[in-house]
Amino acid sequence: MVDPRTSIISERLKGVGRVVAVSSGKGGVGKSLVASVLALTLAKKGCKVGLFDLDFTSPSTHVILGVEGAKPKEDRGLVPPVVHGLEYMSIVYYSGDRASPLRGADVSNALIELLSITRWGKLDFLVLDMPPGIGDVTLDLVRLIERIEFLIVTTPSRLAFETVRKLAGLLRELGVPVIGVVENMKMDKAKTIQQQTRKLGLTYLGQIPYDTKVEGAIGNTNKLKKTMLVNRLRKMAKEV
Amino acid sequence: MVDPRTSIISERLKGVGRVVAVSSGKGGVGKSLVASVLALTLAKKGCKVGLFDLDFTSPSTHVILGVEGAKPKEDRGLVPPVVHGLEYMSIVYYSGDRASPLRGADVSNALIELLSITRWGKLDFLVLDMPPGIGDVTLDLVRLIERIEFLIVTTPSRLAFETVRKLAGLLRELGVPVIGVVENMKMDKAKTIQQQTRKLGLTYLGQIPYDTKVEGAIGNTNKLKKTMLVNRLRKMAKEV
Repeated sequence: MVDPRTSIISERLKGVGRVVAVSSGKGGVGKSLVASVLALTLAKKGCKVGLFDLDFTSPSTHVILGVEGAKPKEDRGLVPPVVHGLEYMSIVYYSGDRASPLRGADVSNALIELLSITRWGKLDFLVLDMPPGIGDVTLDLVRLIERIEFLIVTTPSRLAFETVRKLAGLLRELGVPVIGVVENMKMDKAKTIQQQTRKLGLTYLGQIPYDTKVEGAIGNTNKLKKTMLVNRLRKMAKEV
Repeated sequence: MVDPRTSIISERLKGVGRVVAVSSGKGGVGKSLVASVLALTLAKKGCKVGLFDLDFTSPSTHVILGVEGAKPKEDRGLVPPVVHGLEYMSIVYYSGDRASPLRGADVSNALIELLSITRWGKLDFLVLDMPPGIGDVTLDLVRLIERIEFLIVTTPSRLAFETVRKLAGLLRELGVPVIGVVENMKMDKAKTIQQQTRKLGLTYLGQIPYDTKVEGAIGNTNKLKKTMLVNRLRKMAKEV
């Protein structure tokens, strides 16, 4: 039997233009930073943008954006608060900051629950901060949101890219479109990732230099705006 | 009903001295590098050591150690091959390099299967490279291996440490001993992580400076030996 909540999800996302899942093969590559800054950048350009933190493994966009006190409003579902111009939802509203280990099936349930109760406004973009890797949430979202497109973040490290290969393989098998690959934390001029990305048949969207200013800018969107991350993502956002 | 395979696991681990799970709240902090180098360092000191890569999200110790062609031997179970002096097992022997998304329950099954068929020799240490975060594998292992102890890896980043807090909270609730916290990829002299670790009631084992040589040493244990990672972990290994 189909979960009755799944049919409501398409209904909930009816007013959303594009659904962009920011994903990575591996954690720690700056996926949440890219998702947050991409959302801010698109909003700055005048688009209506939602940001949904679905990274059950380590939700962090609320820390990056310095979200404090904002809460969804209950009104025939959950209405996301507006934070720095973004409609913002996170699984931390659900799990809080407790140690909350969820078993596989519980994660799926929580995800479906959140997707079916969140009432987004009319949006041009809904940016999803995905858990790293290929897990239940990735599989569920691909199943639940037909229009989903992926943006893959990697670093120059071989360890990070090896896992991008797997993620890209899975998405190809499932027929899910990939917007392209962003190379983050770049410290040299090597073209390895660029070449390997093309070999996978994917678009290399560009690189973001390693920037020591980023750590100090976490929690402060004004400081974030002065980082190379914002500078480069602004250019890439034109292609997205 | 108890899975009959779970009782065999204690039997399989009978000859193992200590079981050290190298874990992190977040991916990308160098957990797999620390696990690999810790295992090599303990072996260098004359201990009998096994390394078991259980990071279903992005197994990478085989890439770090440059394991090629080595395979477990089938003999009333699986006998791990010896790689660089370590008895080495990895879930990649199971999943290969394919995109192999496993649903929660399948991950648990694969884990229990692997633990119950692997025939370790007499070991002083079995080092487990855990998946990042608090997921099914962490919960399963704590349930299945009574003697498990954790070593937590973090970076100086606030985003990494926020998730260490959750992991530490869970382990405390479950009554699992934590050997201590290693601060990896250190680039400045800040004492924040050291102080925060002590506030959590945990031992701060020390820091490993960020070392650009590490990336080039991946896959080559001779080069790895010349990195700061090895230098610092050798000192920490004395305390472990």
